[in-house]
Amino acid sequence: MSDQRAVVLLSGGLDSATTLALARAEQRRCYALSFDYGQRHRIELDAARRVAHSLSAVEHRVLEIGLGGIGGSALTDPLIAVPEAASEGIPVTYVPARNTVFLALALGWAEVLGAQEIWLGVNAVDYSGYPDCRPAFIAAFETLANLATRVGVEGGRMRIRSPLIAMTKAEIITAGTSLGVDYALTISCYQPDSAARACGRCDSCRLRRAGFEAATLADPTQYQEPA
Amino acid sequence: MSDQRAVVLLSGGLDSATTLALARAEQRRCYALSFDYGQRHRIELDAARRVAHSLSAVEHRVLEIGLGGIGGSALTDPLIAVPEAASEGIPVTYVPARNTVFLALALGWAEVLGAQEIWLGVNAVDYSGYPDCRPAFIAAFETLANLATRVGVEGGRMRIRSPLIAMTKAEIITAGTSLGVDYALTISCYQPDSAARACGRCDSCRLRRAGFEAATLADPTQYQEPA
Repeated sequence: MSDQRAVVLLSGGLDSATTLALARAEQRRCYALSFDYGQRHRIELDAARRVAHSLSAVEHRVLEIGLGGIGGSALTDPLIAVPEAASEGIPVTYVPARNTVFLALALGWAEVLGAQEIWLGVNAVDYSGYPDCRPAFIAAFETLANLATRVGVEGGRMRIRSPLIAMTKAEIITAGTSLGVDYALTISCYQPDSAARACGRCDSCRLRRAGFEAATLADPTQYQEPA
Repeated sequence: MSDQRAVVLLSGGLDSATTLALARAEQRRCYALSFDYGQRHRIELDAARRVAHSLSAVEHRVLEIGLGGIGGSALTDPLIAVPEAASEGIPVTYVPARNTVFLALALGWAEVLGAQEIWLGVNAVDYSGYPDCRPAFIAAFETLANLATRVGVEGGRMRIRSPLIAMTKAEIITAGTSLGVDYALTISCYQPDSAARACGRCDSCRLRRAGFEAATLADPTQYQEPA
């Protein structure tokens, strides 16, 4: 299984950086994939480039998708505000079918590369309540992937790897730190400023900050204001 | 079930036009969705616009996706020639994971619209050997869709409708004609010229021409040269 090719979804955030480090630790040759989908926090694409380079991805591609054209999320629609307090249910930052879209495109690239693994950093513990972060969703996508593609038809097997799915944010940070991930390169904030400093108030910032505290590790995040 | 909203994938070809007509015949309020994915035969998007209008879609959107960025198909890579003779196995015109990507984006829009159906014109009879046109693929996507989205979490049900899946091309043409589809508006060719005339030689042209012959209906297609 060493030197096997893998497509790794890389947002530029903490979870996907850790996922890339875990794939590298299993000797995968990693092809990192990011998306320019009209997100507010596009500056995360710069973070993804830095992370891909620092963790020795073979290649890093950024695909454009017009998700803004379907709207429906605070992350792609400038008319919907990013919430700064915890909410119940599925939050407005949920981008409809985002992980399905991202995995579908990763599947296409995996086929072209002859890769039989797709890694992604979804997490069902300290997560934001998005339906497409659950283990049953990942299992269903793996089933679909093997029906959708050449590799399935020709007797191979496509695997979807989500190593963070049962980890707490603190466990993720601890694991990544031990693998040398430089979290100062990553951006989790949904609304960073132009200097890539985090707001410290959105869902994603709150989960990240609590994770460093629980892991009792120094938080290298640059915030717009001190906590 | 009448006046129910449905997202309909519309390529501008014969099959998707017929699918839209079938959805309209079931009184669906249809939101037609097309993709600009770097395809050679982009002129089909003009056909999609005409078809959406003629069959009274409520709305027609064209989303951009950078599928050319992953390559691997004669339909998106100018360096791979479109074949003009039948081949065995999965042909080079197969776009990796295309239907998975298209359905994923349709699912996102369906969520935003509150639609609980996605219609698409896949066909497992006179098809081109693409793995993502098989009934098992469609069933797996429906399972995924209900795990991936709000509607699944909140107790609703998303349905994937593929009414053409077991029909021959002749049956599709006969059904569409009886519903008033104007096939002169549609383009099936993978390499039409700038006047939108079909080559008459690619896989898609050959299946279409044979369909009209088998249906004993006049073929309104404009070809670059007479057959």
